[in-house]
Amino acid sequence: MHIDSYFSLSNSDLDSAEFIIFGIPYDGTQSFKPGSRFAPNAIREASWNLESYSLFRNLDLSLVKVFDAGNVNTDGSFTQILERASEFLSKLKGFPIAIGGEHTISCSCMEFVRKKNACYLVFDAHFDLRDEFDDNPFNHACTVRRIFEKVGKVVQFGIRSGIAEERRFAEGNGIEVFYSWDILDDPKKKISELIRVLDQFDRIYVSLDMDSFDPAFAPGVSTPEPFGIHPIHFMKIISEISDRIIGFDLVEVVPDGNKVTQTLAAKLIVELISSIGSNI
Amino acid sequence: MHIDSYFSLSNSDLDSAEFIIFGIPYDGTQSFKPGSRFAPNAIREASWNLESYSLFRNLDLSLVKVFDAGNVNTDGSFTQILERASEFLSKLKGFPIAIGGEHTISCSCMEFVRKKNACYLVFDAHFDLRDEFDDNPFNHACTVRRIFEKVGKVVQFGIRSGIAEERRFAEGNGIEVFYSWDILDDPKKKISELIRVLDQFDRIYVSLDMDSFDPAFAPGVSTPEPFGIHPIHFMKIISEISDRIIGFDLVEVVPDGNKVTQTLAAKLIVELISSIGSNI
Amino acid sequence: MHIDSYFSLSNSDLDSAEFIIFGIPYDGTQSFKPGSRFAPNAIREASWNLESYSLFRNLDLSLVKVFDAGNVNTDGSFTQILERASEFLSKLKGFPIAIGGEHTISCSCMEFVRKKNACYLVFDAHFDLRDEFDDNPFNHACTVRRIFEKVGKVVQFGIRSGIAEERRFAEGNGIEVFYSWDILDDPKKKISELIRVLDQFDRIYVSLDMDSFDPAFAPGVSTPEPFGIHPIHFMKIISEISDRIIGFDLVEVVPDGNKVTQTLAAKLIVELISSIGSNI
Amino acid sequence: MHIDSYFSLSNSDLDSAEFIIFGIPYDGTQSFKPGSRFAPNAIREASWNLESYSLFRNLDLSLVKVFDAGNVNTDGSFTQILERASEFLSKLKGFPIAIGGEHTISCSCMEFVRKKNACYLVFDAHFDLRDEFDDNPFNHACTVRRIFEKVGKVVQFGIRSGIAEERRFAEGNGIEVFYSWDILDDPKKKISELIRVLDQFDRIYVSLDMDSFDPAFAPGVSTPEPFGIHPIHFMKIISEISDRIIGFDLVEVVPDGNKVTQTLAAKLIVELISSIGSNI
Amino acid sequence: MHIDSYFSLSNSDLDSAEFIIFGIPYDGTQSFKPGSRFAPNAIREASWNLESYSLFRNLDLSLVKVFDAGNVNTDGSFTQILERASEFLSKLKGFPIAIGGEHTISCSCMEFVRKKNACYLVFDAHFDLRDEFDDNPFNHACTVRRIFEKVGKVVQFGIRSGIAEERRFAEGNGIEVFYSWDILDDPKKKISELIRVLDQFDRIYVSLDMDSFDPAFAPGVSTPEPFGIHPIHFMKIISEISDRIIGFDLVEVVPDGNKVTQTLAAKLIVELISSIGSNI
Amino acid sequence: MHIDSYFSLSNSDLDSAEFIIFGIPYDGTQSFKPGSRFAPNAIREASWNLESYSLFRNLDLSLVKVFDAGNVNTDGSFTQILERASEFLSKLKGFPIAIGGEHTISCSCMEFVRKKNACYLVFDAHFDLRDEFDDNPFNHACTVRRIFEKVGKVVQFGIRSGIAEERRFAEGNGIEVFYSWDILDDPKKKISELIRVLDQFDRIYVSLDMDSFDPAFAPGVSTPEPFGIHPIHFMKIISEISDRIIGFDLVEVVPDGNKVTQTLAAKLIVELISSIGSNI
Ligand SMILES: [Mn+2]
Ligand SMILES: [Mn+2]
Ligand SMILES: [Mn+2]
Ligand SMILES: [Mn+2]
Ligand SMILES: [Mn+2]
Ligand SMILES: [Mn+2]
Ligand SMILES: [Mn+2]
Ligand SMILES: [Mn+2]
Ligand SMILES: [Mn+2]
Ligand SMILES: [Mn+2]
Ligand SMILES: [Mn+2]
Ligand SMILES: [Mn+2]
Repeated sequence: MHIDSYFSLSNSDLDSAEFIIFGIPYDGTQSFKPGSRFAPNAIREASWNLESYSLFRNLDLSLVKVFDAGNVNTDGSFTQILERASEFLSKLKGFPIAIGGEHTISCSCMEFVRKKNACYLVFDAHFDLRDEFDDNPFNHACTVRRIFEKVGKVVQFGIRSGIAEERRFAEGNGIEVFYSWDILDDPKKKISELIRVLDQFDRIYVSLDMDSFDPAFAPGVSTPEPFGIHPIHFMKIISEISDRIIGFDLVEVVPDGNKVTQTLAAKLIVELISSIGSNI
Repeated sequence: MHIDSYFSLSNSDLDSAEFIIFGIPYDGTQSFKPGSRFAPNAIREASWNLESYSLFRNLDLSLVKVFDAGNVNTDGSFTQILERASEFLSKLKGFPIAIGGEHTISCSCMEFVRKKNACYLVFDAHFDLRDEFDDNPFNHACTVRRIFEKVGKVVQFGIRSGIAEERRFAEGNGIEVFYSWDILDDPKKKISELIRVLDQFDRIYVSLDMDSFDPAFAPGVSTPEPFGIHPIHFMKIISEISDRIIGFDLVEVVPDGNKVTQTLAAKLIVELISSIGSNI
Repeated sequence: MHIDSYFSLSNSDLDSAEFIIFGIPYDGTQSFKPGSRFAPNAIREASWNLESYSLFRNLDLSLVKVFDAGNVNTDGSFTQILERASEFLSKLKGFPIAIGGEHTISCSCMEFVRKKNACYLVFDAHFDLRDEFDDNPFNHACTVRRIFEKVGKVVQFGIRSGIAEERRFAEGNGIEVFYSWDILDDPKKKISELIRVLDQFDRIYVSLDMDSFDPAFAPGVSTPEPFGIHPIHFMKIISEISDRIIGFDLVEVVPDGNKVTQTLAAKLIVELISSIGSNI
Repeated sequence: MHIDSYFSLSNSDLDSAEFIIFGIPYDGTQSFKPGSRFAPNAIREASWNLESYSLFRNLDLSLVKVFDAGNVNTDGSFTQILERASEFLSKLKGFPIAIGGEHTISCSCMEFVRKKNACYLVFDAHFDLRDEFDDNPFNHACTVRRIFEKVGKVVQFGIRSGIAEERRFAEGNGIEVFYSWDILDDPKKKISELIRVLDQFDRIYVSLDMDSFDPAFAPGVSTPEPFGIHPIHFMKIISEISDRIIGFDLVEVVPDGNKVTQTLAAKLIVELISSIGSNI
Repeated sequence: MHIDSYFSLSNSDLDSAEFIIFGIPYDGTQSFKPGSRFAPNAIREASWNLESYSLFRNLDLSLVKVFDAGNVNTDGSFTQILERASEFLSKLKGFPIAIGGEHTISCSCMEFVRKKNACYLVFDAHFDLRDEFDDNPFNHACTVRRIFEKVGKVVQFGIRSGIAEERRFAEGNGIEVFYSWDILDDPKKKISELIRVLDQFDRIYVSLDMDSFDPAFAPGVSTPEPFGIHPIHFMKIISEISDRIIGFDLVEVVPDGNKVTQTLAAKLIVELISSIGSNI
Repeated sequence: MHIDSYFSLSNSDLDSAEFIIFGIPYDGTQSFKPGSRFAPNAIREASWNLESYSLFRNLDLSLVKVFDAGNVNTDGSFTQILERASEFLSKLKGFPIAIGGEHTISCSCMEFVRKKNACYLVFDAHFDLRDEFDDNPFNHACTVRRIFEKVGKVVQFGIRSGIAEERRFAEGNGIEVFYSWDILDDPKKKISELIRVLDQFDRIYVSLDMDSFDPAFAPGVSTPEPFGIHPIHFMKIISEISDRIIGFDLVEVVPDGNKVTQTLAAKLIVELISSIGSNI
């Protein structure tokens, strides 16, 4: 029996770590169920349900250097939070793994995605391409729009909700969109197509809005949306591109009473580390 | 951020509306988990999680006239409730969408199903073909029997629970039954067969007992039953027959703490409106 | 059995009503447990648990004209919400009963409290006297400061949490504060003292932050704080001043799974109407 | 660690037992939160949280003969259930302890209360004196009316909700009513008055609607009602009259997630046995 | 409406029964979410949600003799519990169905699995092959190691978590392991392979750790692990080997608030009885 | 908005801190509701609901040096855990605040209580004076017996459950016991008596089993027991003896869904620090 206040894999320090896990527990603009501010700690707790060995990859994770850096201070305005998070990220030597909080916290990845020949790969049920929402350009429904404006290269996977304006924006701006119903119809084909699209990039930042998964797998999310993808889809894609991933965030978890959504989140972090760690 | 006390699509009035949403929050005969009386309001709440645009059909739902008429008064005996609901339904000019409450409230649809060349298409884990239960002919386990007696044309999809007498009644009375295990084995084939069976009808009333879905997708139902169908099956069937649907009810939701069952219910109402609305 | 989407006492229309109930489901700045956006509908639901007769006052509430006006639209920025709420309030002929949402929505009462010889009586565990919080002057922790700035006359009851600056502000500005521990030690004495303080005002606007009560009675609040007052204290105070109350808001409920906090909220609304209605 | 499917004190058989515990898990007419059908088993589970020794009375409960007879079959109509329960009760040699289910199941006690110089002492937030509700004379809101009709001697403690007609009925028919607010104001006085009223009876049947307690102590009830009494009031009253109690039912528990209401219920059953058992 | 304290199929007595259901509510070594001690009663409760007729097999289960023998006393040390359970099992004439409690309780099956040409078929997400955990050889993570030591023949299905040592132990000792990702990729093939492996045994004891299923289907388990199998896989395997199954345990359920995991557990017990009962 | 993974007051380091908070998340012997292993993190989370200023004492807590040292590793046997905890405690320079976990973890305080003229003051509903339970001398029901054996001076407050043997042990060994019903009858008197008893000790170690409080205030405990004391009683006692308290543990919290028990726990830790810190 072992439950601790940090992510179970943490075995290193900030400077030596190959992977740095940190939380950004901000959820000020959630449009339906709020509470993702509690996710980083809940996912840390759930990490103690998991082994430090990846059976899938036959990899002993104690050999990988991981550090849980705690949470970014989310006092103040969102601009202040974003500055703090971006500054923190800019100093990191290891691979960053940010746990939200709402999707907006993904905006702190901008410098990463602006790197040469990089793209922002986002798993989400929603476009998040609005120009503003509730009079706020940093609403969680605007995240991808903000990032696209600065970065220009976005690929979306699992989309099944949005407004006409967002669809038009995506279509009019060359954003590659993989719709959930197409994926559900033929997952292998769509995953292959995605891999092909990603082949053109040397660096891939991955943002995982947990509502991309069907609520069956991830009931604890802020804006559950039926008809989602299976977590195995995510795993398979990550396996294919793990040598080019440069950063990762996992967002929009609202902890559920059975602790299953937070366990899935912790598991995906462990397997992402395992997948990338296998290349080191 | 916007949560209101009416269904989010409501944008019209009773007389002009093409679609009328109303609740019948009665659950007096539930045999296991009671509480579907709270479903109409919970589904209304969850509707605010959804967009007023169907990405699936590229349809702006603000162009469709929808009215949330509130709840039918469920004071009194079930007979009184049924009379009120039936009278309400008889005066409607638009397409009726009833939210239960338990399955019994579907009995208020009788006049619809009695129309020329109409049938009652019911998605359910259970036959609901008992002659009586707990000494009550209007128990939720008798709904389809009551409707069959008056109407004669019933098609059942997703069935996986019942008693021998119900199976015999279905077999002996020409009720078409699609069993859940057959559907899970080959969904495309079984959906095609269903469509073919429905081809003979000019009018189809659709009753959706949410326990037809696997509890993975709809954990918040009164009598959860494993081995259920996937909500995408429902969506695909509705798409094929949307030009002939004459009425709809959605029943047996007991709101869950993660708000996912009520979100699925709200989503299916939105997409049914979208599917039928595309034909208008 | 009767559950509906409006407050159970609603029996009138906007223009004729003596009491108008409406929701302002905004909770964008909650500092701990968010979710009071779901409170207005949850309290409406719980109102169906209650009788339309006050046994305490022997008053038939069907004789009092009440209207549930639904929710104020909370799309947009808080400034926009506040404008909408204030405009709505400015047109009302009847007694306003606002259901939050977080405490900030109480700011829409300003015009009421600015009336001649009026005061703002607030039940709360917290001062809410900060100048800003999270870089936002309209954070829920600043509500009373904002109101005090415009109005000047504030009385606080049940206080047991805050920062030194807030205490100094209260002390330095003549705000009467009744601390929770003093009330728990001798409720009768402290209630009498409060009544005496209130004697100097002709008009009293009452704001009830439900966290003023002990979490034993109101577990479903955004920022639960131990050592709170008993709901009977509120009832007794209201009885004494009911002839001078000019408006009411009830805020900070985050619905709980046993439905007890929302039932307490609905009950207090019913008894406030009953108390004031007895004078009509 | 020991959790079993029967009440923890059960140590005897039906014929030898001095106390017989049994469930009547019927809740077909609940007006707000249904689910008391799950209470008997939940209270059995909670009984394993308690000792088989009463520290309060210094009584070893293994010396008292108790039998858990399981549940009365609640298939069929309520009339059938009532017949079964009454027949079961009529054959019992020991002291009966019925666990509801809703309050209506208390009607099975009629033969007990009809005994010479007996009365029905009911702890409840509600009068339950309606002549019918939802067109049903056996609605839980009519329980006490039905019993009064056959029995004539009723004493009510903890009342704080009802309609004018019920109050008039109580006043016009000599029913002694102790209102909750009077009890809260001076518990000792009101308990004394109650004891004096009960002094005139040789036999007392006790019915405990758990909503008589404040929702702080019993959050898991079907119709929570604020301003309730403290469980210690019940304990003190039982102590005074334990030599004349002839039967007991405990009703209206809807199990809560923290298991506190069911623990309170189990505790009160244990202490009632202890109190009566001390006289044996 | 019928909820009782024993498993719904129970219709016989200990000596005549073909199937004996009993609980072993011990969970002293759970490594993440404890609480499986509450599972036997919760699964009994959920059994009342199900029919006594298997629609899948067209079998009237009232024709099969089933007895619910209550729970094994879990007072004392685990060694004492194991002795009690083993002794109970050794005297049984009918087919044993043990409900945990944690997986460790499966150790009471040893005498069964030691029979001639018998094997231990275990469905689990985890190897449970550790030599000790928390300094305890009877930790739930060591169950299969303990059984293997005495029995030698183990087949594992659904595995997806463990440590390197466990994998090596399985590989080095000829334990057949079917990994979850292989099953998800091609269920039919892997099920066929399993059947072929099982063909060599005349007797099969089946142990079902409910965490073998995806948390989507079984959210209420002690150590939820994503990427699990579908319950239909279990059903299909059981159908194929039902004539050789000699005992069954179902473990690691921590009851969930929607009652879906316990319903799945009860359903699988009913269908296992149905499957084996068809052969009688 | 600020939620972090450490206790909110933490502002120092291990060597400089005046107060050291640490968790011991062990709950291996809980007899009813397990899950206190999750309490340290839940209480840390709840601490962010509280101010760093004590309004009660007008004390700025940023002036007090506090350090959250994380959790003691609870891998291994309880003996190993106890050794680790004791060793950790033996090296501390500051005041220790241990968060359980179950009551057994209090055994790590032995060296403290063995100091000259020290006593162990325990708030609890239960004696915890058994010699063994479940064949384990380190069961949570034996905690106080183990401590008494080594220390000899124990005072118990809030007791209301136990077995005859425990009462006799207490009476026969000069353990001062304050029963809950006596405290509820006249709190002031009993608190005075307690203070007088404590006057004879120069050092007091305080152990707070949160089930000492009524479940109304602390619903989230492992073994809820009705008729408990009010948290204000604890506060008042602490105020009187704060200059002699040498260590503190808070145990048996099982986090509740409304986060109220963990908030109460965090609050009492903050106020204990404030009370003792005022003397520094
Ligand atoms: Mn998103
Ligand atoms: Mn999303
Ligand atoms: Mn149905
Ligand atoms: Mn059904
Ligand atoms: Mn406030
Ligand atoms: Mn407040
Ligand atoms: Mn009653
Ligand atoms: Mn009642
Ligand atoms: Mn296992
Ligand atoms: Mn397992
Ligand atoms: Mn204790
Ligand atoms: Mn205790």
